[in-house]
Amino acid sequence: MTVPATPGPTGPVASPSGLDPASLDPASLDPADVGLLAPVWASPSVAAPTGDAALVAAMADLEACWAEALEAAGLAGRGAGAAVRSAVRTAVGSPDGPLSAARLAEAGQGGGNPVIPLVKALRAAVADADPDGPGKGAVHQGLTSQDVLDSALQLVARRAVVAVAADLAGAADALADLAAQHRDTPQVARTLAQHSLPSSFGLKAANWLQGVAHAEARLAELRFPVQCGGAAGTNASLVALGAEPATLAADWARRAGLDAAVAPWQSFRGPVTDLAHALAAACTAAGHVANDVMLLSRPEIGELGEPLAAGRGVSSAMPQKQNPALSTLIRSAALQAPAHAAQVELAAALSEDERTGGAWHTEWPALRTLLRLTSGAAAALRELAEGLRVFPERMRANLALSGPLLTSERIMLELAPVADGGREGVQSAVDAAIGAAGDGAGPDEQARVLREALRGVVRPDQVSEERLDELLDPAGYRGDAAGIVDRILAYYEATVAQRREPLRGQLPRV
Amino acid sequence: MTVPATPGPTGPVASPSGLDPASLDPASLDPADVGLLAPVWASPSVAAPTGDAALVAAMADLEACWAEALEAAGLAGRGAGAAVRSAVRTAVGSPDGPLSAARLAEAGQGGGNPVIPLVKALRAAVADADPDGPGKGAVHQGLTSQDVLDSALQLVARRAVVAVAADLAGAADALADLAAQHRDTPQVARTLAQHSLPSSFGLKAANWLQGVAHAEARLAELRFPVQCGGAAGTNASLVALGAEPATLAADWARRAGLDAAVAPWQSFRGPVTDLAHALAAACTAAGHVANDVMLLSRPEIGELGEPLAAGRGVSSAMPQKQNPALSTLIRSAALQAPAHAAQVELAAALSEDERTGGAWHTEWPALRTLLRLTSGAAAALRELAEGLRVFPERMRANLALSGPLLTSERIMLELAPVADGGREGVQSAVDAAIGAAGDGAGPDEQARVLREALRGVVRPDQVSEERLDELLDPAGYRGDAAGIVDRILAYYEATVAQRREPLRGQLPRV
Amino acid sequence: MTVPATPGPTGPVASPSGLDPASLDPASLDPADVGLLAPVWASPSVAAPTGDAALVAAMADLEACWAEALEAAGLAGRGAGAAVRSAVRTAVGSPDGPLSAARLAEAGQGGGNPVIPLVKALRAAVADADPDGPGKGAVHQGLTSQDVLDSALQLVARRAVVAVAADLAGAADALADLAAQHRDTPQVARTLAQHSLPSSFGLKAANWLQGVAHAEARLAELRFPVQCGGAAGTNASLVALGAEPATLAADWARRAGLDAAVAPWQSFRGPVTDLAHALAAACTAAGHVANDVMLLSRPEIGELGEPLAAGRGVSSAMPQKQNPALSTLIRSAALQAPAHAAQVELAAALSEDERTGGAWHTEWPALRTLLRLTSGAAAALRELAEGLRVFPERMRANLALSGPLLTSERIMLELAPVADGGREGVQSAVDAAIGAAGDGAGPDEQARVLREALRGVVRPDQVSEERLDELLDPAGYRGDAAGIVDRILAYYEATVAQRREPLRGQLPRV
Amino acid sequence: MTVPATPGPTGPVASPSGLDPASLDPASLDPADVGLLAPVWASPSVAAPTGDAALVAAMADLEACWAEALEAAGLAGRGAGAAVRSAVRTAVGSPDGPLSAARLAEAGQGGGNPVIPLVKALRAAVADADPDGPGKGAVHQGLTSQDVLDSALQLVARRAVVAVAADLAGAADALADLAAQHRDTPQVARTLAQHSLPSSFGLKAANWLQGVAHAEARLAELRFPVQCGGAAGTNASLVALGAEPATLAADWARRAGLDAAVAPWQSFRGPVTDLAHALAAACTAAGHVANDVMLLSRPEIGELGEPLAAGRGVSSAMPQKQNPALSTLIRSAALQAPAHAAQVELAAALSEDERTGGAWHTEWPALRTLLRLTSGAAAALRELAEGLRVFPERMRANLALSGPLLTSERIMLELAPVADGGREGVQSAVDAAIGAAGDGAGPDEQARVLREALRGVVRPDQVSEERLDELLDPAGYRGDAAGIVDRILAYYEATVAQRREPLRGQLPRV
Repeated sequence: MTVPATPGPTGPVASPSGLDPASLDPASLDPADVGLLAPVWASPSVAAPTGDAALVAAMADLEACWAEALEAAGLAGRGAGAAVRSAVRTAVGSPDGPLSAARLAEAGQGGGNPVIPLVKALRAAVADADPDGPGKGAVHQGLTSQDVLDSALQLVARRAVVAVAADLAGAADALADLAAQHRDTPQVARTLAQHSLPSSFGLKAANWLQGVAHAEARLAELRFPVQCGGAAGTNASLVALGAEPATLAADWARRAGLDAAVAPWQSFRGPVTDLAHALAAACTAAGHVANDVMLLSRPEIGELGEPLAAGRGVSSAMPQKQNPALSTLIRSAALQAPAHAAQVELAAALSEDERTGGAWHTEWPALRTLLRLTSGAAAALRELAEGLRVFPERMRANLALSGPLLTSERIMLELAPVADGGREGVQSAVDAAIGAAGDGAGPDEQARVLREALRGVVRPDQVSEERLDELLDPAGYRGDAAGIVDRILAYYEATVAQRREPLRGQLPRV
Repeated sequence: MTVPATPGPTGPVASPSGLDPASLDPASLDPADVGLLAPVWASPSVAAPTGDAALVAAMADLEACWAEALEAAGLAGRGAGAAVRSAVRTAVGSPDGPLSAARLAEAGQGGGNPVIPLVKALRAAVADADPDGPGKGAVHQGLTSQDVLDSALQLVARRAVVAVAADLAGAADALADLAAQHRDTPQVARTLAQHSLPSSFGLKAANWLQGVAHAEARLAELRFPVQCGGAAGTNASLVALGAEPATLAADWARRAGLDAAVAPWQSFRGPVTDLAHALAAACTAAGHVANDVMLLSRPEIGELGEPLAAGRGVSSAMPQKQNPALSTLIRSAALQAPAHAAQVELAAALSEDERTGGAWHTEWPALRTLLRLTSGAAAALRELAEGLRVFPERMRANLALSGPLLTSERIMLELAPVADGGREGVQSAVDAAIGAAGDGAGPDEQARVLREALRGVVRPDQVSEERLDELLDPAGYRGDAAGIVDRILAYYEATVAQRREPLRGQLPRV
Repeated sequence: MTVPATPGPTGPVASPSGLDPASLDPASLDPADVGLLAPVWASPSVAAPTGDAALVAAMADLEACWAEALEAAGLAGRGAGAAVRSAVRTAVGSPDGPLSAARLAEAGQGGGNPVIPLVKALRAAVADADPDGPGKGAVHQGLTSQDVLDSALQLVARRAVVAVAADLAGAADALADLAAQHRDTPQVARTLAQHSLPSSFGLKAANWLQGVAHAEARLAELRFPVQCGGAAGTNASLVALGAEPATLAADWARRAGLDAAVAPWQSFRGPVTDLAHALAAACTAAGHVANDVMLLSRPEIGELGEPLAAGRGVSSAMPQKQNPALSTLIRSAALQAPAHAAQVELAAALSEDERTGGAWHTEWPALRTLLRLTSGAAAALRELAEGLRVFPERMRANLALSGPLLTSERIMLELAPVADGGREGVQSAVDAAIGAAGDGAGPDEQARVLREALRGVVRPDQVSEERLDELLDPAGYRGDAAGIVDRILAYYEATVAQRREPLRGQLPRV
Repeated sequence: MTVPATPGPTGPVASPSGLDPASLDPASLDPADVGLLAPVWASPSVAAPTGDAALVAAMADLEACWAEALEAAGLAGRGAGAAVRSAVRTAVGSPDGPLSAARLAEAGQGGGNPVIPLVKALRAAVADADPDGPGKGAVHQGLTSQDVLDSALQLVARRAVVAVAADLAGAADALADLAAQHRDTPQVARTLAQHSLPSSFGLKAANWLQGVAHAEARLAELRFPVQCGGAAGTNASLVALGAEPATLAADWARRAGLDAAVAPWQSFRGPVTDLAHALAAACTAAGHVANDVMLLSRPEIGELGEPLAAGRGVSSAMPQKQNPALSTLIRSAALQAPAHAAQVELAAALSEDERTGGAWHTEWPALRTLLRLTSGAAAALRELAEGLRVFPERMRANLALSGPLLTSERIMLELAPVADGGREGVQSAVDAAIGAAGDGAGPDEQARVLREALRGVVRPDQVSEERLDELLDPAGYRGDAAGIVDRILAYYEATVAQRREPLRGQLPRV
């Protein structure tokens, strides 16, 4: 509810901001988005490999690989590949050079994509270095903008996915450790925000692990195909040049570190939607952990705590406050990923013609944002999982809150066969405890009432004191929790963890 | 823009509707949604297997299988399984019986899901038939609502997916036929809504096929696991009963036609998100075809026509009008699927506790709607693909619209080496034709100008009249279109089409 | 993680479900959706006024109003209106009659919408009653399907919005009462899931009220315009008939209880997107309350409780469990509404031609689902707000958890001017308490340490014991909470509550 | 379909990219997003006012206004406001200064938002300039991060909305001119992608105008309230300082150019969701125009053309190709806006506590992206509308494609009363023409057949040749199209256009 006294944006501003427009024109400011509003991916180590400059580098790299492939196929003069590669090496990464991302972004508006000005700039750079050399003619020869942009996004994606997979692997290992370590740590299970039955923290960790392992599996299935179709998806100019398009495309892919494709996928967007869904699965897996951590580290619950780190989660005003900063960041990613994945799917669903006007363009930012959210969430998840603080005493105390009634089912099953009055006898004892709880009795008093009432129908020679203790202890009624943990861990070891081995060898190279 | 003269909903209605509320209380109407607003799935053959009654049947079936499994494991008395099965057989499908979907839906509000009243009704029915029999106690023994609801949705999904896969297989076969048949039918490729270069209709059909085959592959990878965790995901009461939970769950899955699960997946929702994404992929593949068909059957383009069928697409007012009804329905599904899949993903991303309040509940309608949209879209796609009308003459006529300039690249590549003035000589000829086009000349006149200008720089003994004809014919400049078609078809045959074989054997049984 | 031993859907099912396909064909089941998967709207009082039958009734009502308007304008014979009205009265609401929703839904697939078969059935019914009468010719004369479907959705929406507005008004009144009543009930404010500073429960209720009042204002601004454009949006056949289209449309609107429109809005969808956004705002306002209630009624927090009602939130297995069923239902609606509103906006963003193929069709189910979700959420919110149980003692106890450090800021501001050592003196006292907290001291011990240290720098004649008690009591440091409550309530009374008055008079009629 | 020969991301890359990781570490690249993937907002004039630097400037400006307000209220020492203002003036806009957006973004990760490091840097800058002055203590005194971030987003939004409103006003004027100018230019109306009935291009332009005017109205209703609640939404420290929080907040708002608020809105997000919906409405209005322009400028249709501009829409490879670049950009925005608006609504629906962990953070990027998409789309729309090329001859030619049958309804209505055989007589004539069309006759031949058949039942003295010409001319059967145009224009002038006047005076100041 806003006081409507001052007029809206179409009325005069009552008092202008102190920032005098004459002295600080908003349009004069740097237009870049550096992650100020997206702390989950604002770390340069996450943002840079997926930033606009990285995309320019990938596009330029692909153009160089292409010239090299043309030359190797005898379709460009000797030295063409080296000439383009040299120009790329010189220009890429220089913020003021001809391949400045900002300049290409602005110039890309006329044609609707940044490849057109990039090719122009690259041709000029190659020609500058050697006006009569074979390089200029080889730049982009036979390609179209979509070939370069789609392939560059795949290249950037592949690198990001390798990093994400490494972080997920680390997180999964940490979660597996937590599951094993806390296999028998009692914790109450909660359903619909209420206490349900006793369980273990190890089982919670194992359930988190299921999600991370699922995301790992999805990411491992991805392929990152090159797109090579030419202006219309027919590779017509390559054929006119005398090339064998499929062979040339496969060589291009090999040189760039991409996968070969059966065919151009310019109007069929399966590689992109698969990628989007796998990234969303990773964010979801991370969000699952973050939701529970944020909840269970509330002061009233206190079962978990985020890892402590200097400067993180600290509030300047309140010395006692420790914000769950990692969970907050992860959760922000998990809540955004589904819509971005849907945007990618929608672009595919709107595919029309051999290149869709408008819809194709919506795919790029959605995909890149997904890469960034996932990269940031996976890194934060790893840190969270590796440093999670677990407070078993609080788990036990909270479990006790719901009292011995949590175990009434078990009491009924075991004691009814021997009790005086059978099932009805035991039920009356349970009812007494329920009544006490209704009257406000705490868990200890409920246990006392229940025990006394049970002793009225079951003699010590039928059920010993020790056994009664056990039956009344919620922490003991954890069902198959430990067995489930074991099965999840065994499955994880046998599948995901094993499949991941090759990745470890690769990591230093990327 | 609305005339604001009459007051809004909070002001008195100027003139009440003729439907006197006294005589027709809206609340007295049937509240059911029968597809009036969703023609894509309104056919009973699509809607019924995924309707509320089918879900009730699946839940009841699962309860019967469970009692049978308990009995087989010695955890329920002899005859318990048969007793529950018998009650289920009697009650399921009867709209007025105790398992009426409408009654369960309404009664399910108190507890937030329909399983609670279903179990109550089923226990009563079993007890009615044999008050002292072993059946009543076996109903739902050791299960929780989520076990039954999650598993029932998987069961309904599995059946729907089998039908979808069959329709996609039919559609894919038809598209493969179109691709093969029109491998050499010239059609202009269009990018950003403008003519790009010559291509073939066969390549367009092959690109459509890529999407359908992709969706088939995604669906074939799905598993439909049973969910069996008990109240808290620990199977505590099964253990208290003396059961081996994992074995019992696997037997339940086997009996119900579901897959066994490594572990309960109540807070990890991977099986559901994978399903949602695969369904969205199918809708997207269908949408890709529909978008092109709707566009290319516009009167001004006229390259394609939907199959004609009595009563479809006919407008009563306009006898000449033939609406693209199948494409419209398919497109409506494709445009909705991404958001429903995102809703399922969001529910997973919000997973908290051992059962999430609210988020879990959003998964059900989104998933069911996806099943319906996909079922309807796949059926319509099959009909569309199998009966698509193709008009090669119109394709050729539209291709001619852009004139011989479409082939200027090829002319340059072939004639520059031999022409007087080399590259510049040919360019001047092309420029003359561009100038003519700019002056409003049609394609024929452009061709005449271009040919005359080329003859000024290339002699007949260098390039024959016949070769000049070929070079000037856009239809001949299709690059590798035929090769790409061949590769897509070969890959399709070697992978998806082959993998599908077992399905064919299974179809009569479902 | 799923055991992949059993084959997927394309492999043979290991053991078929007990539901023998021969005896129970899924396609033979009732395909209707009666809310089994959507408990938030499954109540017939919510679902029926927005169900398919209600839509059929609205369409039929609009056709009758139209015939009456035609007759009044001299464009149809005497008695035409009464004839159509009579046929409508007879047919509407009869599930087996010619206007059966199920029949129309299925027949609507051919043309892509249900109006075509409805008109056909209505014409037949009118002709049956009086073959030579003027009625049949007047049915739908000059209208097109979109006119009837768009207008019927507005009619159904208007009725639903009136009910929603009434429930929101009730909820807002209850929240205003809670805000006033608990204006001074201390409760800790929480930010990022951690304790922040003391506040009051009254302020929380007032903040909830801001959202409900906002939604009420948005709904009150809505208009429900008739759509009347004829086949192409030009009203060509009305002109040919000699009608004044705008006048006739306004009379139609008046008769049906809709607003007149400046112009047809068939390709401009503003009335529908405004409606969708206002409905989403209502779901959001309800969700805001539900999120807090679900959280604060967790056993470890226990500050709020949902109203108790027989059969609601009760778990059969766990007698002590009380699920927050209303919050769960509301939250399920709030989490779904944004995506449905986005679907409506997307349909508008895809508007093309004078009626968009596919996109228009996606608007209907999204809008109807929004109406249902909002209706159910508003009713549940009213019940929740009117019966919310508040536990001030638990609020005070939780507030105390964070100890006296919550008030250190205030202590510093008041005592630094008089303390020995000034600011540094007070800071050293606070640091002592922080140190104690860090050593695990509870709030009482922290208070003791802090008090003792403060007494070292401030004498009793400077600050009395009583004042020190006040300064150390977190509950007293609530800032302007009460003033903010007062301002929100005053604004609410002066604007929304007042504007709503006319509605109250109208309610009995609807 | 991807060739699975090369291993996935977890296998070793067959051939590494030419970009040697040793020489170009992706993490060393500039991480900024400068619009490379979002050409619709890549222009600095659009991107800069909403970029991260603009947000930093807005936050700093708000801090300076706050210090000034504190001083004016006697809550900070003389000169405090000027000291902070001076530090802000020095630091803002300097990319390497202490308020560098990149530095704040990275430093903001620890606390989850950039305000914490901004305040720290600002305090240091103020203290550097005058270590003992009153400025440092006044920086951020009594505020919390959310106050500054929420208010800064409102400030940036207000400025962007003023620019959007100006562009929409220009576009609306241009569309109104098109509607007036082409009020009587015949064009076929299309429904479901098929020809429907004759209409006019003026009516299409007027329908576009409805959307733009609707968006203008929605934007004009917005308020941009300041958020001022302190750490917990109670303004506790302001009260402790002796301030009157509401008065102080209103003065802050006035100084910053924001609206006052009834109360803090930290957990109630209505101002943000209203803003998001209004922005989406603007994108939708622009998308509506773009969809039609993109379609109607296809070569086969050719009724419209985008304005020509050097370097825009030109393809280097194909001289004859003119891509609809403006429509493409606009459409990319319109297809993305709904999901971003839904994200903002979802954040509000997830509101919990007094500041929601994770959900609040998802609001920022969604809102900013909406501002950018809308700014870019509105600017492109204005250019498109002001320069749209209209080809009435092609409209007439396409209208003729569907032949005289488009007017059969009118022929029936006018001739049946006088014809031999009445209605049946005329119907037989129409049937003859339908038959001819079915046999492939073109529109001219259909007209000939129809005319001859009509002459068989209607004599020249009954209906003259001239009248028959008119009846057979589709272009003449435009119904009330001109009247609808007039009403839309009149309503637009009387409401939106008028309301906009104050804005024009304001524009130079912004």
